[in-house]
Order: sequence, then C-alpha cells, then structure tokens
Amino acid sequence: MAEYDLLTIGNAIVDIIARTDDAFLKDAGIEKGAMTLIDAKRAEDLYARMGPATEMSGGSAGNTVAGLVSLGGRGAYFGKVSSDQLGGIFTHDIQALGIHYETAPLPAEPPTARSMILVTPDGERSMNTYLGACVELSTDDIDEAVVAASRVTYFEGYLWDPPRAKDAILQAARIAHAAGREVAMTLSDPFCVHRYRAEFLDLLRSRTVDIVFANEAEALALYETEILKEALHHLGQDTARLAVVTRGSDGCVVVEGGTRTAHPATFVPHVVDTTGAGDLFAAGFLRGYTQGLDHAQSARLGAIAAGHIISQIGPRPQTPLADLPEAKAILG
Amino acid sequence: MAEYDLLTIGNAIVDIIARTDDAFLKDAGIEKGAMTLIDAKRAEDLYARMGPATEMSGGSAGNTVAGLVSLGGRGAYFGKVSSDQLGGIFTHDIQALGIHYETAPLPAEPPTARSMILVTPDGERSMNTYLGACVELSTDDIDEAVVAASRVTYFEGYLWDPPRAKDAILQAARIAHAAGREVAMTLSDPFCVHRYRAEFLDLLRSRTVDIVFANEAEALALYETEILKEALHHLGQDTARLAVVTRGSDGCVVVEGGTRTAHPATFVPHVVDTTGAGDLFAAGFLRGYTQGLDHAQSARLGAIAAGHIISQIGPRPQTPLADLPEAKAILG
Repeated sequence: MAEYDLLTIGNAIVDIIARTDDAFLKDAGIEKGAMTLIDAKRAEDLYARMGPATEMSGGSAGNTVAGLVSLGGRGAYFGKVSSDQLGGIFTHDIQALGIHYETAPLPAEPPTARSMILVTPDGERSMNTYLGACVELSTDDIDEAVVAASRVTYFEGYLWDPPRAKDAILQAARIAHAAGREVAMTLSDPFCVHRYRAEFLDLLRSRTVDIVFANEAEALALYETEILKEALHHLGQDTARLAVVTRGSDGCVVVEGGTRTAHPATFVPHVVDTTGAGDLFAAGFLRGYTQGLDHAQSARLGAIAAGHIISQIGPRPQTPLADLPEAKAILG
Repeated sequence: MAEYDLLTIGNAIVDIIARTDDAFLKDAGIEKGAMTLIDAKRAEDLYARMGPATEMSGGSAGNTVAGLVSLGGRGAYFGKVSSDQLGGIFTHDIQALGIHYETAPLPAEPPTARSMILVTPDGERSMNTYLGACVELSTDDIDEAVVAASRVTYFEGYLWDPPRAKDAILQAARIAHAAGREVAMTLSDPFCVHRYRAEFLDLLRSRTVDIVFANEAEALALYETEILKEALHHLGQDTARLAVVTRGSDGCVVVEGGTRTAHPATFVPHVVDTTGAGDLFAAGFLRGYTQGLDHAQSARLGAIAAGHIISQIGPRPQTPLADLPEAKAILG
C-alpha cells in the first residue's frame, strides 16, 4: 500500500498578494493573467511600486498537495527554500498540514522564492515570480523512498525554468515507474508551454508522464492550434493514461485515448481571486483518482476545490476542504 | 497647517493569522480574546503547533494609521522593526499606503515582532505576541519635526510592555503639546490595563493624554469597577478632551466632561475575524475628528471602518475604505 496518495514537486514560493487595477498592470508593464519570471532587481522595483499585501505560502505544486491533504488525502512535497523567514513560513505551512516535507533548505542566498501576485477587480491574477532558492533544486533533493511510496508523483511544468530541476523530475519519474507508480504533470501556463513545448511533448510521447493537466490555453499552445478539438485529439494520442483539460466556468474535459467526457464546473457567485484555480482543480481530481473514484466524481472534486479557492484570496484553503458538504457527499 | 492628520506610535508587528477552534486554544493554554506576550521559545513552540497561516502587517497603532490613510487622511508612524524579511514586509506595507515611516530598523537581532493570531469560528481573535525588535524603541526614534507637524499623536497602551518606549511617548507628548497639538492613546487590552493601571490613570490625570480610546472591558478595568456608568463618569473627570468607549455591536459612547452621547455600530451580517476592530474604530473616529467633523459623524466613520475590518481576515483593509459608499457619504 502506498504511504502517500500524492507527491508533488515544484517551485517552493511564498505569494505576496495585493489588489490592484488594470492601469497599474499596464503602467508596470505586467502581462495580465500570466506568470512572468523576474530577477532580483525587478522584484525589488515592483515591490516598491505595489500596494500593501498579504503573504501566503504558494507555488503551484505546493498548492496542489495542500489541496489534496485538505480533502483528506496523504501528501508529500519536494521543493527548495532558503534558511530565511519566508522559507520558515513556507515550511511551517506545508508541514502544519501534515505533508511530508524534508527538502534540505539552502543555508543562505539566494533567498526563498516569492511571487508578487496582482489581483485585478475581475479576479484575474498576474504573477511576477523571483525564483530565488528554487534554482538550486536538483537530483540530490529526490528522496527515492518517498517517490516509491507515493501513488502518484506530480510535477509542474514551471520546473523547466530553474536549471537543474528537470533532471530531478526525470529521475523521480524513473523511480516512480520502477515502483509501479504513476507520474502526472501540469503544463502550468501557456507562456511556459511556449518556452518548453518540444520538451513537454517529449515527456508525454516518451511515456515519462502518464497524466497531464492543462487548461484550454495551455492545451492549445502545446499543439500550436486554436481549435480545442484538435488539441484534445492529439492529447488522446500522446497521453499514456489521461489528459484533463480545464475550461474555467465551462468545466473540464477528461481525455482517455479516443474517449472524451465533459464535466461541469461549480457555480461561483463571485470570483475574488483566481490564484490557485488550476492547482486546486488538480488537487481535487487527484484526490478522487487516487481513491479509485470515477472520472465524473474526480472532476466534481476538482471543480469543488477550484470553486472554493477562487472565492477567497490566495491559493491555499483557509479552512479544510474536507469540511465542505459537497466534498463530504462524495468522499463520505 | 499640519502636514499629517495623525502620527501613531506602536509595536511594529507582522501578524501570523490562522483559523482554529476553542479546543486548540485550551490545549495550547491560550487566553481567549486576549493579547498575551510570549518569549522566543514559546513563539517557536506555538508556531510549530498551529495550522497553516496567512501573514499580514499588523500592530495596533500601525493598523490605526493604515485605516486613517485608507479613509483619505495623511499619516505618519513610528515603530521598530529589524532588518529582516518580516521587517521588509512591515515597512513595505506601511510605506505603500503613503504613510511617513522612517524609524531606523535594527541592524540584526532581535528579529521583527510577530503576533500569532488564532481566530475561532465565532470570529474572536486570541493574540500571542513576541515583541522582538520592538523592545528597542526609544527616545532616539522620536522625530521631533514629525510630531510637531501632526495634528494628533496617538499611541497604544501596549507600548508600556517594551522597556524604553514609555520615555519615547512622554517625549513625543511634550513635543506635541509644545507645538499646540493633541495627544491620544488607546488602553489596548484589559490585561494591559491591569498591568499599567496607575500609569495609565496618571497619563490622563496629568493631561499628558487629551483623548483616550477604550473598549468597555478596558474602561471597567481602568477603574476596577463592573459598572459602565461609573467608569464613564470617572473618564469624564479624568480626560482632558474626550474619552471614546466602544461597546462592540452596541456602538460607542463619547464622553466629553460631563456630557455623554451614544452612537450606534454598523450592522455586520457575518463576523469573520475581530482582529483590528478597535484599531479601525479609532482610525475612523480620528479621521472625522481631525477633519473637524462632529462626534456623531466621527463615531459613524469609526463604526464603518470597524464593521469593514471584522468582515475580512486580518487588521489591514484590503481595499481602500474611502471607496466605501457609506464613508463617501460622510467624507464627500
């Protein structure tokens, strides 16, 4: 039996979240809705310009395992912080959820990664990420026993940005498959797909990855098409096990070879902040999947978790998702 | 003309906010609803036990000036942080509001103060504060020109906890009065009143303080009575200018010599987190007071600001209070 339902690997980031307006984004030269990598200088400049903020642990894969555990699953995480106060916050928050997290922190510089997230009145988030300590994640950080003990090992496409993380992922995938486990990834962001398109396709076609999560824009970017049907067709051919494509308020499509099923989103009366929507969808889906639930039930859990997270500020649930009546109805 | 409507002086604190239940408070030996001072060891132990959290700048007087500026006023702040990441967050957040804040940070240890705030399902907050760098606030940190340029200098009773801050306050009060300005304080917390009762009474009776803010429990503690009428009577005699006593959902009483007027609270359908309620009431009241509004209008602004802050998580407004239609109706 697996000790963990899900191991996730990602950039370990503390989010710095502030509300702003479209004029500020334009003025500061920020690409709306995207995740933009910034250097230390730009991070300092942008922080000096942005308004008062709230800090919360984040990082795409960190959010996903936090969501899975919040839904009652068992999780582990690999990601690199530094031995500074932000690193202490990240470590506290993930360990406080009962997630196994033992990646050795850097002793000093570069500092723990942070993402300045600007949320506009429409709820859209624009992320500006300084990777800091994340650039040091390497094969040394892959704990073989934890990978082998995890039903699914999931990583974020964003890990192709730091220099050595991809080697760590390939090693983790080998260990997982040797132990009879599955490997999943998220394509993360359409701009990220543009940066690493060939490599991401190779991860699917080489069967390094069994399950892929993408939103519509990422799926279209992967196949350089504007026709969703085409992208879904290719995903069916290229994916070993499953492709799950989210479409915001239009729900999601689960692609399994030649079979496609559509599943609805939940109704969200007021979108506060879309940060973490995709991360939490994956959390809910994988909570169901690792419990052996069918795709409809897994997609429903994904929709519940995503719907909850966009109704609050920040990407980590502030109360246990397992307490939501609609989640209880599925998980019992 | 004054350059600042309000200068506040207080413990510069970053809040670490988590939701919990009454069982956890009991188990961890936390006094519900109070502000308890803790040492570095207890801070570490408690942080290890508490759940995942959100970080936000706090500190009572810091929240008050943030609220005043959020309502369109001009503010300044004195308070001590260290040169660490939490100090950087505190400094950013207060400066980003346009508040004059130039207190020299400590070069190293002790670290920036933090308060672990546990919020129970009833919205009540229980604070556990490690003062860190705040213990170094001294007369050296009183910028005479800023005090003289501020219509009102306001400080928190909590400043009697660190060892040298009271000297700084007495110096600031002398400067303010010499410049023809007024001095205000908050009694902060009933336990704080118990610790410094004689000194707080002396601040009022010596006319060091012109305006005092207190909630009902603090006013009762100050005069060691259980009868509000009695406490209000004494406050009328002891206070040079005004005493403003808040009573939660029952509104507030403004005491001016022998005259008392009651003013209503705003209706808050769902109390999320009471952190900052008193701080923001003072912010709203002083916004009106420094504009020359009458007590009823000032109390209404206080009620609006307090009502807003307890409807969200954390003690700093996440959107400008001046944008609230009910605040606009008063401030124009």
